[in-house]
Amino acid sequence: MSTDPRRVLVIGIGAGDPDHLTLAAVKAMRRASVFFVLGKGEEKSSLTDLRRRMLDEHASPGYRLVEAEDPWRDRERGDRAGYAAAVHDWRSRRADVCERLIREELPPGATGAFLVWGDPALYDSTLAVLDEIAGRGSVALEVEVVPGVSSVSALAARHRITLNRVGRPVRLTPARRLAEEGPGEDADVVVMLDAREGFTRYADRDDVHIYWGAYVGTPDEILVSGPLREVAGRIASLRAEARARHGWIMDTYLLRFGEQAD
Amino acid sequence: MSTDPRRVLVIGIGAGDPDHLTLAAVKAMRRASVFFVLGKGEEKSSLTDLRRRMLDEHASPGYRLVEAEDPWRDRERGDRAGYAAAVHDWRSRRADVCERLIREELPPGATGAFLVWGDPALYDSTLAVLDEIAGRGSVALEVEVVPGVSSVSALAARHRITLNRVGRPVRLTPARRLAEEGPGEDADVVVMLDAREGFTRYADRDDVHIYWGAYVGTPDEILVSGPLREVAGRIASLRAEARARHGWIMDTYLLRFGEQAD
Repeated sequence: MSTDPRRVLVIGIGAGDPDHLTLAAVKAMRRASVFFVLGKGEEKSSLTDLRRRMLDEHASPGYRLVEAEDPWRDRERGDRAGYAAAVHDWRSRRADVCERLIREELPPGATGAFLVWGDPALYDSTLAVLDEIAGRGSVALEVEVVPGVSSVSALAARHRITLNRVGRPVRLTPARRLAEEGPGEDADVVVMLDAREGFTRYADRDDVHIYWGAYVGTPDEILVSGPLREVAGRIASLRAEARARHGWIMDTYLLRFGEQAD
Repeated sequence: MSTDPRRVLVIGIGAGDPDHLTLAAVKAMRRASVFFVLGKGEEKSSLTDLRRRMLDEHASPGYRLVEAEDPWRDRERGDRAGYAAAVHDWRSRRADVCERLIREELPPGATGAFLVWGDPALYDSTLAVLDEIAGRGSVALEVEVVPGVSSVSALAARHRITLNRVGRPVRLTPARRLAEEGPGEDADVVVMLDAREGFTRYADRDDVHIYWGAYVGTPDEILVSGPLREVAGRIASLRAEARARHGWIMDTYLLRFGEQAD
């Protein structure tokens, strides 16, 4: 049976609230015998603990957790091409680690899983890493994806808002692209994990509303919303305090431009 | 106790697969004694049935389902301002209906719920309608939102893709805006409920990939992906057939422009 493909489940587990788990995610967790975790270092250990608690509650007894160190990622290359190259390089080294884990820890025909915060379709590299492994052709994989509640949906829910306005688009964008491109016409822009606090560059405009949240869905959740001009400073200090207290921060925000126009 | 606010839960129930329900959604369904449904006419009765089955499985025994007719919506006004005006007018009439339902069917202090397909934050009017009711000041409401798996996440999961490419934005846009604005530079664009089949206007380009799905997550699911030039015609015929067979269609797609560049 050693030519059977290995089944790999990529399970979205929501944005931090254990109740974000879907019934499909719970069922998928029960199907897997091995869970793969790439450690991100100490700073996010509370997230690792949360994941482990989810597994203890929902996975099949006797599940195995296989951990490995996440490869180092070059975050210094500044321009767009350099950034993409650094990410591709990092993914490739992640693929090396994951291929080894899958080959050594998951027998052919068995089912393993990666638990992904939020939704696997948004700013997560697990699927790209598995594509790269599959493309190498040395391990046969059958990949199945279980969608999850994204941090974007969680943010909107906690603020009780919609992301889009009537008949308008919403753009989910990396912080660096907001800086390069600006908001665009009558835009609603969602930015995830913006270490540069790109929102501050619009803080002198009087037509921008921000809905910001950190650790959304967890007991440490912080929410601020209001006219950007009025609340930008407060968000910046809350970010700094929270980052110092927790050692890391996970935050998301929606900027609504041209607010008076609606 | 008649001055107690009424609590209204807006619960995202996922994109069509009953297992998209989150644990939080299940718990919220148990808390509500009354569920409000605005009927959309016969064509979507299979969706109404699905919602009822979810309630029968998860809601507290003895729950009440209160149905009313959805107000007529003018879909003819063609330009952007006309479209927005028509939607605002329709929402206002929806608010009239919902305010009456809430006032008559939900006692002060009690908990009612709206079940929303997908995620309440994306292209759904329930939150706007409740805001309008609250703004009128005649009924005190406490609104709570439970995020859900959007049809966008469900589509991506079934195709086993991410929505964004490395370091790039993704835009969720109404079909009419894709037609007006085009895709933008190296864009990934998600379009929901595009009755006009706006993707066909890019079918002569050789750098566009499409990931399309209809009835995603249901037993009627149809998925097609590939270079747009090769599959656009097939998607158009599948849409026509499915629409004729079911009487309605719910579909979503991702267009990935400049595919060779990545």
